[in-house]
Amino acid sequence: MKMLINVAETVIADALRGMAAAHPELTVDVENRVIVRRDAPVAGKVGLVSGGGSGHEPLHGGFVGPGMLSAACPGEVFTSPVPDQMVRAAAAVDSGAGVLFIVKNYTGDVLNFDMAQELAEDEGIRVAKVLVNDDVAVTDSLYTAGRRGTGATLFVEKIAGAAAEEGRPLERVEALARQVNESSRSFGVALAPCTTPAKGSPTFELPPGELELGVGIHGEPGRERRAMMTSREIADFSVDAILEDLDPRDPVLVLVNGMGATPLLELYGFNAEVQRVLGERGVPVARTLVGNYVTSLDMAGASVTLCRVDEELLRLWDAPVSTAGLRWGM
Amino acid sequence: MKMLINVAETVIADALRGMAAAHPELTVDVENRVIVRRDAPVAGKVGLVSGGGSGHEPLHGGFVGPGMLSAACPGEVFTSPVPDQMVRAAAAVDSGAGVLFIVKNYTGDVLNFDMAQELAEDEGIRVAKVLVNDDVAVTDSLYTAGRRGTGATLFVEKIAGAAAEEGRPLERVEALARQVNESSRSFGVALAPCTTPAKGSPTFELPPGELELGVGIHGEPGRERRAMMTSREIADFSVDAILEDLDPRDPVLVLVNGMGATPLLELYGFNAEVQRVLGERGVPVARTLVGNYVTSLDMAGASVTLCRVDEELLRLWDAPVSTAGLRWGM
Repeated sequence: MKMLINVAETVIADALRGMAAAHPELTVDVENRVIVRRDAPVAGKVGLVSGGGSGHEPLHGGFVGPGMLSAACPGEVFTSPVPDQMVRAAAAVDSGAGVLFIVKNYTGDVLNFDMAQELAEDEGIRVAKVLVNDDVAVTDSLYTAGRRGTGATLFVEKIAGAAAEEGRPLERVEALARQVNESSRSFGVALAPCTTPAKGSPTFELPPGELELGVGIHGEPGRERRAMMTSREIADFSVDAILEDLDPRDPVLVLVNGMGATPLLELYGFNAEVQRVLGERGVPVARTLVGNYVTSLDMAGASVTLCRVDEELLRLWDAPVSTAGLRWGM
Repeated sequence: MKMLINVAETVIADALRGMAAAHPELTVDVENRVIVRRDAPVAGKVGLVSGGGSGHEPLHGGFVGPGMLSAACPGEVFTSPVPDQMVRAAAAVDSGAGVLFIVKNYTGDVLNFDMAQELAEDEGIRVAKVLVNDDVAVTDSLYTAGRRGTGATLFVEKIAGAAAEEGRPLERVEALARQVNESSRSFGVALAPCTTPAKGSPTFELPPGELELGVGIHGEPGRERRAMMTSREIADFSVDAILEDLDPRDPVLVLVNGMGATPLLELYGFNAEVQRVLGERGVPVARTLVGNYVTSLDMAGASVTLCRVDEELLRLWDAPVSTAGLRWGM
């Protein structure tokens, strides 16, 4: 498998150097692997820190900036960052108003953020923590006890980020982040596997003519393999899998997310089918976002995330945001 | 090759329906295949129309909005739109201040925009036209007499769009667009080919362990094939190919553009190498943009575009823009 890299060992450091060059509004500590918005800490405001294995870009580093994350800690590809990164990030963004850790539910991330919380609290930083576990495909998986954290991470980071930007206290930012996670569900499919730089060959095998329904963002197995389906059929299956578990009485935010190698042309076409089935099921759509946001290296496929929103969540979603990967209103 | 589609025949219509659902700020005419900013025509302002074959998303439809294009006409995949689309677009955006056609240099696009210009002028619309031909890799190619139009299209559309938004007259907007094109050069590489929905198999063959240097955005052959190179070597080759043809006495805008299937992690790493070689060659960098902007379906690879800017071009580049694919400052 050919990659646009030097050697696997320097992929993260190279990417961080390239990110620093492209984004003077970020402070990128290449050696310690922490990405911080340049104006942090912001007086009186809660700091938001997330992180996880690399390979899901723009998540999380691309979501650092006003109105979203204060800092992100990238691990090796598909590998949790270490507590030291998280503590550094917390110290860099804490203005005294406390720090919220946003943690995708993978065993390594959960353990490391737990340890980082203890260490940061030892340094006198007040830390709250919210777990993201929105993937309805499977309970328990290759790297996870319970449900996996996937597309809802974007909704949690955006909405909690807007609340922090407004100067809301830590307890309120944490409660909103928790509400977003509890109101969100995701389901993903893979048409082709991804390849990590270290391994150099596909992380799983997917025969020609088959797709993986319910795949995770590291290529973890899903619910089942089937003969290839149409966009229409995949939308029906994905949305119904979500709606089995999410009472759609409120309007929803829709994320139609590309896994990495699926063209935007196809993602928009898939969105048309997602919107059709939501209409057929009587689910009102408040906002829709289509693109590559929570990726899985060069995996082909897509995921759907729905988030039920009340007026406050919708207002916070619409609030200005200025990051490399998501930007509007400023 | 598996795709997230229904059938090849409906790919464009499906994508346009999905785009309409995601972007209420756009008027998407699915039947006639024209994407227009909802507030068009804007009184007293020049209208900017571009278009071309689909498969390069977010180009062009994703660049419609305040500060950039007024309308876009998507053709079938890798196939020019027809004059009727362009005339409809011109009529929809002309406020009386005239319309600029931005045309990538491919034989079909050039012929069809020429015809559309005549037809629109017959309807009393004042039309100017600018050709984008920035690709230094080859002269004459599979679909082109002369150089191909690639990444510089983004610079032309953004800077001319900012000038139009400021209310500059048609002659000035045209002159600026021409200046941007003349100040821009691109070079692209492919690590893996793309597959069109209609064909269903790769558009060209690229043996394992080789890359195509100087590839076009439809997989047209480039300068040469070589054994796979490192990111560092590809950056050296690409930037030097550009600098052979572009006198870098001014600062440059840098676009490190993904062809579609190359992860953002790799694009940022590649950007680090592009910045390194620019530094070594003494070329000052004013701004850098990294991401998937002028794609080639699911092709793996990347291109580099440099645009020499004076103070006015830089100011127009920095001006607010609000489109699906590029957004800042508003």
